[in-house]
Amino acid sequence: MNKQKPISQEPVSLATVAAQAGVSVATVSRIVNGETRRASAETVERVQKIVADLGYRPNHVGRTLRRRESRVVAMLSPNLDNPAMAAIAASVETALRSAGYVMILCDTHDRADLQDEYLHVMRSQLVQGYIVVNPVRSEALSASVARGDPIVFVGRRNPDGGGAFVGIDNRGAGEDAADHLWARGIRKLAVIQPTQGSSATRDRVGGFITRLEELGLPDNAIRQAEAPGLSHLEVGYAAARTLVDGRPWPQGLFCPSDLMAYGAYRLALEAGIRIPEDCRIVGVDDNKLNAWITPWLTSVHIPYADFGAKVVDQLQALWAGEQPSEQLLPHTLIAR
Amino acid sequence: MNKQKPISQEPVSLATVAAQAGVSVATVSRIVNGETRRASAETVERVQKIVADLGYRPNHVGRTLRRRESRVVAMLSPNLDNPAMAAIAASVETALRSAGYVMILCDTHDRADLQDEYLHVMRSQLVQGYIVVNPVRSEALSASVARGDPIVFVGRRNPDGGGAFVGIDNRGAGEDAADHLWARGIRKLAVIQPTQGSSATRDRVGGFITRLEELGLPDNAIRQAEAPGLSHLEVGYAAARTLVDGRPWPQGLFCPSDLMAYGAYRLALEAGIRIPEDCRIVGVDDNKLNAWITPWLTSVHIPYADFGAKVVDQLQALWAGEQPSEQLLPHTLIAR
Repeated sequence: MNKQKPISQEPVSLATVAAQAGVSVATVSRIVNGETRRASAETVERVQKIVADLGYRPNHVGRTLRRRESRVVAMLSPNLDNPAMAAIAASVETALRSAGYVMILCDTHDRADLQDEYLHVMRSQLVQGYIVVNPVRSEALSASVARGDPIVFVGRRNPDGGGAFVGIDNRGAGEDAADHLWARGIRKLAVIQPTQGSSATRDRVGGFITRLEELGLPDNAIRQAEAPGLSHLEVGYAAARTLVDGRPWPQGLFCPSDLMAYGAYRLALEAGIRIPEDCRIVGVDDNKLNAWITPWLTSVHIPYADFGAKVVDQLQALWAGEQPSEQLLPHTLIAR
Repeated sequence: MNKQKPISQEPVSLATVAAQAGVSVATVSRIVNGETRRASAETVERVQKIVADLGYRPNHVGRTLRRRESRVVAMLSPNLDNPAMAAIAASVETALRSAGYVMILCDTHDRADLQDEYLHVMRSQLVQGYIVVNPVRSEALSASVARGDPIVFVGRRNPDGGGAFVGIDNRGAGEDAADHLWARGIRKLAVIQPTQGSSATRDRVGGFITRLEELGLPDNAIRQAEAPGLSHLEVGYAAARTLVDGRPWPQGLFCPSDLMAYGAYRLALEAGIRIPEDCRIVGVDDNKLNAWITPWLTSVHIPYADFGAKVVDQLQALWAGEQPSEQLLPHTLIAR
């Protein structure tokens, strides 16, 4: 190995060590700070040797910000006023902070142009990695993926396929909702969804319908309705209204998000329909506020509070040069 | 005025124009882009003359990101899972985007150490301004204020006093809650609050109690309870439990935030108390989800959707070198 002693009086930088070791600055930083589990033993030994040879000494110990090395990770997420999105952001931000990083958050509003704009801005801000929640296909995202930027996708997968992913088994969530309603003897069933759905909502609805077919309900016996728009509150309300137009309410109604369930609930209130007595609504997310103010709602709990640790694991794996992977967390139906 | 023609072939930069004009880069940028209302006529004329003399030409027209000039504004906010905080963030982010800026968001969790850490990080990211929602007193914030950084305070005022502020008349919100309950003939009244309250919650409670005294209710006739902790959901629940320990529920209960009202509501459900029939709860915020899922809750509506435009006005005023000011938006009680 080429041993270079620096000629200048300048202190040896992390970047110098990283360049000699052929690894990223972040990898050297972690090894120097004792976080060695993500690097191979050979890499750890090599870096430690170079550190000794070059006489590298860290400027600061612990979580003090090093101005030369950005400790910033960017999260791009749509609709931070959706409690599920806020819960993901909170979980990831806490986990990143424990790992010595700070997180900055940008709301993409589900728009490709905004996703692109924020990706550009974050790149010029020299962030160390990206967490893209509910990605949409966009030019800058595809370019970023192609360039090998460290990106973790959350909720929805990489629109171009592949990449590191943290989410749940959406079809399984729909299946659990079907099992719950079926087990209670409910046979007059319905499901609503957004016209402009995502892979997540489509998989949840698909899982629900397929499971009911397996249980013996013919597909045409499941009433379905959809409504356009991006606001799940509005979609839930409008789709439920389409569903019950001139017909009785179903005995069971699956909504692939709690926000849609809230929308359907508002219509039920207006119509004097009692939930769950007249119609049992099942949602997905189990938003934090449900336990306090929606005793009528059964929902599939998604462990958003655990997403953070998984996302940070994925980022650290990418920084260490490992292959991206999928991490699915377990969902659980919470009956009320 | 000193007219310098650049000798090199380098295009003239915004920074060069700004330096000659004795104004900020952002001011020059706005004048070049036709946004002249915040600058004095003398400034506009001076800048335009220097632009002409130096032959400055903008690199890009419109909202394209200029890598040399950060178009980024940082928002520091606690508890993004509080719907009120999420609503402020959404409103400000939209308004900033309309003004050609992008907003990055950091969650301070109401902690002085995190507020400091994010202020440091944002400063090294060269943001153009700061929006601090519900500030706590912290070293870096005081230093930032003393340095004259462009900061707009939202919700709670600058802990050191002064500065640009956007919020509501908190005492007035409490007064309206008192008037509402009084007008319905309710005299068995109570109020709960967090032990570690903020100026906002203290002012709302103070306004409520003072108004009732004016209306004729003696202070000792207003039942009061508090509970420690930062989660308003938990505080609402615990304080309500303290309030009704071994005693009947009040006929009217004021909660200085909707999250506290949700907490009290959960206790009521557990106790079989009907809201509002047995106890009329009044909250503050009128969270977006209320219209959908909390038909039992009367709340003082705070026009968070209008905060964004006011905040951007304040920032542009600060960038133009104007004195900071207070902007209070109107609140309205929404009865259910």
